[in-house]
Amino acid sequence: MSLKLTILGCHSATPRVNANPTSQFLEIKNHSFLIDCGEGTQVQLRKYGVKFSKINHIFISHLHGDHFFGLVGLISTFRLLNREKELHVYGPTGIKEIITLQLKLSNSWTHYPLLFHELNSATSELIFEDAKVEVYTIPLDHRIYTNGFLFKEKIGERKLNFKAISQHKEIEICDFQNLKNGRDFILKNGEILKNNILTLDPIAPLSYAFCSDTSYFPDMIPQIKNVNCLYHETTFLKDKETLAFSTKHSTAEQAAKIAKEAKVEQLIIGHYSGRYKNKAVFLAEASPIFKNTLLAEEGKIYIIE
Amino acid sequence: MSLKLTILGCHSATPRVNANPTSQFLEIKNHSFLIDCGEGTQVQLRKYGVKFSKINHIFISHLHGDHFFGLVGLISTFRLLNREKELHVYGPTGIKEIITLQLKLSNSWTHYPLLFHELNSATSELIFEDAKVEVYTIPLDHRIYTNGFLFKEKIGERKLNFKAISQHKEIEICDFQNLKNGRDFILKNGEILKNNILTLDPIAPLSYAFCSDTSYFPDMIPQIKNVNCLYHETTFLKDKETLAFSTKHSTAEQAAKIAKEAKVEQLIIGHYSGRYKNKAVFLAEASPIFKNTLLAEEGKIYIIE
Repeated sequence: MSLKLTILGCHSATPRVNANPTSQFLEIKNHSFLIDCGEGTQVQLRKYGVKFSKINHIFISHLHGDHFFGLVGLISTFRLLNREKELHVYGPTGIKEIITLQLKLSNSWTHYPLLFHELNSATSELIFEDAKVEVYTIPLDHRIYTNGFLFKEKIGERKLNFKAISQHKEIEICDFQNLKNGRDFILKNGEILKNNILTLDPIAPLSYAFCSDTSYFPDMIPQIKNVNCLYHETTFLKDKETLAFSTKHSTAEQAAKIAKEAKVEQLIIGHYSGRYKNKAVFLAEASPIFKNTLLAEEGKIYIIE
Repeated sequence: MSLKLTILGCHSATPRVNANPTSQFLEIKNHSFLIDCGEGTQVQLRKYGVKFSKINHIFISHLHGDHFFGLVGLISTFRLLNREKELHVYGPTGIKEIITLQLKLSNSWTHYPLLFHELNSATSELIFEDAKVEVYTIPLDHRIYTNGFLFKEKIGERKLNFKAISQHKEIEICDFQNLKNGRDFILKNGEILKNNILTLDPIAPLSYAFCSDTSYFPDMIPQIKNVNCLYHETTFLKDKETLAFSTKHSTAEQAAKIAKEAKVEQLIIGHYSGRYKNKAVFLAEASPIFKNTLLAEEGKIYIIE
């Protein structure tokens, strides 16, 4: 069991040749989520072989252009591709007006159901849930209303301990689901077999926290505690800490501090300012503080397990 | 004297890897005009070495995404580049609301003056004029309100005929401007030297007509008569004439017919549907009807003289 994260774009501010703005594609359980959608995301999806039809849920962190200017184009392309399935868009209040105004003026309403879930809460909220996955907002501190997103697998069923079960002929296949659900088993003689004898702990659920953009913001730590993987923006290095502060961005050092304090397993950094030609400087600053740091690279796939 | 046209994108519908939607960069006299601005145009500008600071006027034909989804990103990038000069945007009514709504919600108003010239006339109008250049709308027939644009050099000053002038010692350098302006010269003895003896005709002014998107629409012919270069969309071939008709697009044959009837000097075709892998089929259909036809190619520069 693993999550699969494809980086479609990991640069800040303006799209450039070979430097695309933020967008990520996350495969978790039975879902494929698109996270942020800077200009050019649909081309990046094609370039890296992501099937458009897989995407049913798009999460937009905030309404700065490098995080959503590609959304209206993707929505329009879905229409041209004769999409019929629902598309759910989660983003700050106003995103619906922006998209629908453009669809109205171009007389290009989607034939498929386009459903907006507008966000405006200052505290974390559960915005998506099904039997296997939950998605929560992570309130961040940026120049405009911004959320990160916490993607969590739900804890699964308990695993059958066949070695233990085989010692009790009274337990039949039709009892297995009850055992997986955590129930004890009562033998005909009245003896109770505790569930934890007959089953093993379920596979540990995985989690991924996406945090872009934000100032150094320790308030997020309780929410991202122990996640398997944290993506945290590092627009600048420590030498630009004043600029990071005034523009409400983070340095590589600050991202590493957050990762360390939250005791996450892995940190991926990105959202690089164009002023740094060699991205290795971000790794050099972050990894002494948090060893398990990786650079986000366009087109690269990160397996979270 | 020549016009210089750079094709930034010439494909229809959706941006794909190496197939960008409509955008062109026209250099005419002392101006640099951007025509249409599909998603990814700012990356194309960088790729083909167009200086962003050269662009002061952007003309948008209509509000289908493949012609304007890159505009808001370009406007935002100008801001990030600390632009101070005015930017003029000419496009259908509604374009101002689309752009300003996004700038408002991202709290990213431009520091430079951003001036919209909204168009809604059903007949041609002069929308830009200075001492050397005029730009007119060309009303087209598409699914939504659409204009082409006619870019015309103004007729210049008459050229001095130095051989003729040298025979009249009374004519001094300070008289030259009057001669260029077309005035006759009166000798001291009262004799009138007609201007057309002392000067030659000015260099013939050049013109470029951009027509995308449109159904086969002969109404445009009087307006584009004898232009030096016509860009006319050819989304489809003749085998898809019914589809061209229903979607209000043109075939290569129809574009060639328009060029022939309008007696233009050169035709450039583009806005290709993605269904045709080899664009040579468009040339094969158009050139038997209008010989001087060229295919639009991304990144290619066309000199109009």
